[in-house]
Amino acid sequence: MSAPTTEIIGILGGMGPAATADFYAKLVATTPGASDQDHLRTVIWSDPTIPDRTQALLGDGPDPTPWLLDGSRVLREAGATVIAIPCNTAHAFVPRIADHVGLPIVHMIGEVARHLGAMGPGLRTAGLLATTGTVRAGLYQDWLDRFGIRLVLPDAAGQDEEVMTAIRAVKSGAYDDTTTALLSRAAQRLIEQGAQAVIAGCTEIPLGLPEDAVDVPLIDPAVILARALVQRVRTGAATGGAV
Amino acid sequence: MSAPTTEIIGILGGMGPAATADFYAKLVATTPGASDQDHLRTVIWSDPTIPDRTQALLGDGPDPTPWLLDGSRVLREAGATVIAIPCNTAHAFVPRIADHVGLPIVHMIGEVARHLGAMGPGLRTAGLLATTGTVRAGLYQDWLDRFGIRLVLPDAAGQDEEVMTAIRAVKSGAYDDTTTALLSRAAQRLIEQGAQAVIAGCTEIPLGLPEDAVDVPLIDPAVILARALVQRVRTGAATGGAV
Repeated sequence: MSAPTTEIIGILGGMGPAATADFYAKLVATTPGASDQDHLRTVIWSDPTIPDRTQALLGDGPDPTPWLLDGSRVLREAGATVIAIPCNTAHAFVPRIADHVGLPIVHMIGEVARHLGAMGPGLRTAGLLATTGTVRAGLYQDWLDRFGIRLVLPDAAGQDEEVMTAIRAVKSGAYDDTTTALLSRAAQRLIEQGAQAVIAGCTEIPLGLPEDAVDVPLIDPAVILARALVQRVRTGAATGGAV
Repeated sequence: MSAPTTEIIGILGGMGPAATADFYAKLVATTPGASDQDHLRTVIWSDPTIPDRTQALLGDGPDPTPWLLDGSRVLREAGATVIAIPCNTAHAFVPRIADHVGLPIVHMIGEVARHLGAMGPGLRTAGLLATTGTVRAGLYQDWLDRFGIRLVLPDAAGQDEEVMTAIRAVKSGAYDDTTTALLSRAAQRLIEQGAQAVIAGCTEIPLGLPEDAVDVPLIDPAVILARALVQRVRTGAATGGAV
């Protein structure tokens, strides 16, 4: 960052808290700079009490929209000029909050779709490991359609027994080699269905699945979101991903 | 966390930003709980533009006090009920801000001294790896004196060429085995001077010095601070470390 910026990054987090810490570490690692003072001012609202997004989307729990609006208000009042939400499933609620936040939201899923689209015309199929909420809400499907990329998903058993089991293990802090084995098996099945890249479409997944456990590029939406924020601040304008 | 809490942790961070991300990850890891909703609401103000604390203490740069007061105000207005500052050197400025913050500050260095004191009467000497600012300000010396613990420090050359070189490497993101070698050599000299425990007294140091690179207990003030915060929230009261 050569010139000082007046931008302040607002991170609407806590979904879950470990993923928020991980996202902020990735944002710091992505920011070029040799001293503290080169880094971006950031305010993080990490509210782990936000009701579970997947349960809400499946009709099993309260709507998290009021919590998301409240967190966005805190970030705006703290001086944030742009909002990032490092939780894939929460993006299902972005259309409900976008008009009320009063700040641009850099859309993580939109940025991932753009990134996959930029990988070239050879990339026609991507696989998705995500919460059942994200899968059912069709978030990635909608965005990848715009770039002509086909999406492949785990079957119902793999989604329940492998992907969701692994995500819950990471959320509880009790993840280990078994978690990695569950996720790499699920990824392998997506590759067998033609996936040329696998999206780690829940911020918990990269914590349990190292890149080298997958034979195709593993796309970490948190890294893509961090790069989009840095790019936005550097150029002084949205990359087009803000809603 | 069995009962819901109304406490909101405020983290005054950005000094540096990587250490802030690391501290928040440690706070999450320290918090017992199986689901997101068991974790603590947290607001983080990470302002890497806060002037360098060591330079200010050495008379070479602007006083960071106004930035610290401003960040504390942001945290208070965001609803924080207690403040934690995961930067050792910044604690030199706590006496200047404590009366104006309007919230209790859980004092990281006080908590480390208490922790060392609780390690038993056999622990009489501790070593310190910290910034030149922290060393010169006498922060650990003052607190350890209260517990009858002697502090040993690197000599001037070791402080400049080993400790500060390593801290700057971590801040720039360019740390590697050389960084670890510098820090473990400095730690070894403290042990030769009688240190029965070594304090990783700059939040950057644990990122460059793994515990197993030191032959005596390596005390990570960030972990001690995280535990003190969790303890405070659980018992609904300060442990005595708040100022």
